[in-house]
Amino acid sequence: MATTSDNQTELNNKALLNLEVGPADRILLYLAMGAMKMGGHRYGAFLDAATTAAKFAIYTTYLEQGGNIRKTGFLYHVEPKRVKAIIQEVQEALNKGLSLKTLSSQEPYYLIGLPHLWQELHPWTPGNPRIHTQGLMASERQQIEASLPDDLPPARLLDLFEFMDLIKVLHVKSQEHLSPDQRMPLSDALTEHIKFRLLYSDTVLQIDSPLLTMPLFALARTAHSPKGPRERAFTMIEDVARFFSLMQAWVAKEPYVMRALEVFDVDPAKKDEALAELDKLLQDWADKYHQDDGDPMVLQLAAGNREFEV
Amino acid sequence: MATTSDNQTELNNKALLNLEVGPADRILLYLAMGAMKMGGHRYGAFLDAATTAAKFAIYTTYLEQGGNIRKTGFLYHVEPKRVKAIIQEVQEALNKGLSLKTLSSQEPYYLIGLPHLWQELHPWTPGNPRIHTQGLMASERQQIEASLPDDLPPARLLDLFEFMDLIKVLHVKSQEHLSPDQRMPLSDALTEHIKFRLLYSDTVLQIDSPLLTMPLFALARTAHSPKGPRERAFTMIEDVARFFSLMQAWVAKEPYVMRALEVFDVDPAKKDEALAELDKLLQDWADKYHQDDGDPMVLQLAAGNREFEV
Repeated sequence: MATTSDNQTELNNKALLNLEVGPADRILLYLAMGAMKMGGHRYGAFLDAATTAAKFAIYTTYLEQGGNIRKTGFLYHVEPKRVKAIIQEVQEALNKGLSLKTLSSQEPYYLIGLPHLWQELHPWTPGNPRIHTQGLMASERQQIEASLPDDLPPARLLDLFEFMDLIKVLHVKSQEHLSPDQRMPLSDALTEHIKFRLLYSDTVLQIDSPLLTMPLFALARTAHSPKGPRERAFTMIEDVARFFSLMQAWVAKEPYVMRALEVFDVDPAKKDEALAELDKLLQDWADKYHQDDGDPMVLQLAAGNREFEV
Repeated sequence: MATTSDNQTELNNKALLNLEVGPADRILLYLAMGAMKMGGHRYGAFLDAATTAAKFAIYTTYLEQGGNIRKTGFLYHVEPKRVKAIIQEVQEALNKGLSLKTLSSQEPYYLIGLPHLWQELHPWTPGNPRIHTQGLMASERQQIEASLPDDLPPARLLDLFEFMDLIKVLHVKSQEHLSPDQRMPLSDALTEHIKFRLLYSDTVLQIDSPLLTMPLFALARTAHSPKGPRERAFTMIEDVARFFSLMQAWVAKEPYVMRALEVFDVDPAKKDEALAELDKLLQDWADKYHQDDGDPMVLQLAAGNREFEV
């Protein structure tokens, strides 16, 4: 299922991106799709992160304008009262040493944290039953256990109530580093969202059986680690952030920054050869100049078919 | 002034970015600063663009989930009613052939369009007075005209009312391609924002003189073209969008896509040499494989100091 859905994702992404889209909007689209579809972030989390970024832009402008709230407001078409509130909010966040990891490239904490917590709170050791549910005969229990995958982590199965309790503990832990006004209550809808995401990502398996009156839940992985296209999507976000950061240095004309854009047409029969040669050229070049006690440098490159006008 | 402010911008950007920031948040921060500070977009325009991107992510998920509104809602923690409204909104936009250029890499239309409109509506031909203001003696008029820069475009000066009228015409034009619910009324605050941006970007000069009871306004450039760091900022946004697009293809494992990340340390005395050699390597490589009737390809690279952990 995951694979079909991922392929489908690509198709739809491509269809949408045939729209006439400006470059800044394109970056936002890719980012929203990466963070929400691949990363499992809530709609609200993405909007919060975007709003926070815009507030930082306002805050730095305010500093540059010598603390002139009116001028800052004019520049971005924001009421002075609103500018004032934004400045206060950002300053408080900075004073508190806020960590701006609203959208970490990894999934939300409540997804990453589950496997560890489950194994810690509900461990299982070989030889013991994985299922503690009352009202099952030993043979029924063994029948269900036999139907489970072989490679489950050492954690026992939970019934619906235990699973929901685990989500509650996880939610409380995930809120600990947030300031009180950033915290979200665990509503029924948020519980359903978290449960759905855990099943959807194959981190948790739901076990239904005619022998059971309620489904059971099994931890399926020791880590909520993204696989396949999702893992690549995280790498992509990290690469883009690094590329963006290098380009910021280029805009500021910092020394020792290089930007290159090559636009060219290649014989279809030679494309593989060309890219393989490029790969080798870059590695040889980096090896040639690498010196253990030198200045830390990084190179980030992507090459491929030219789909948009340059 | 522009230069000081730009240098200052870089300083503040760097200070903020020493915060602990995840890669997706870093991309949003760079983008907000680029679009708002360098690009002159409104706070609201950036938030609208981010919201639109997130709605598209919801819409494509809805398609992938076979039109299941409940499931789509669970995935992003959005109420089914809200999902339904978002789907309708995106579908209508797609049906209307919406062009998603909320944040074009260039500045908002009302900034770009002004020089052309001004020259068209208020042309000036040499030998005629540039100032039409009543109540000035010819000598006074000439004195003010003599104080103007030599290289002004062929457009006459406007008084405050004429300038405000021009902003009105510009605003109406900039709204023409928008659907009625996207249109914004031209409030006094929006007028002030546009006026401020035009002066701030040196596209328009304000002429104050003891001879005048009201300031005059002069068109200072034939095009609202970004200069210096601002021009580089636009290039940066375009480069990042292209890099992001190549990485999307890499995530989807499309053929003929290459991603490279080289992490290395270089003798400080050899950094210039290393980058110059890299530049030459890339150009030679592209020249070697370029063939006029080949498949269109593109390569995007940035290299520089490694400031964040890889």
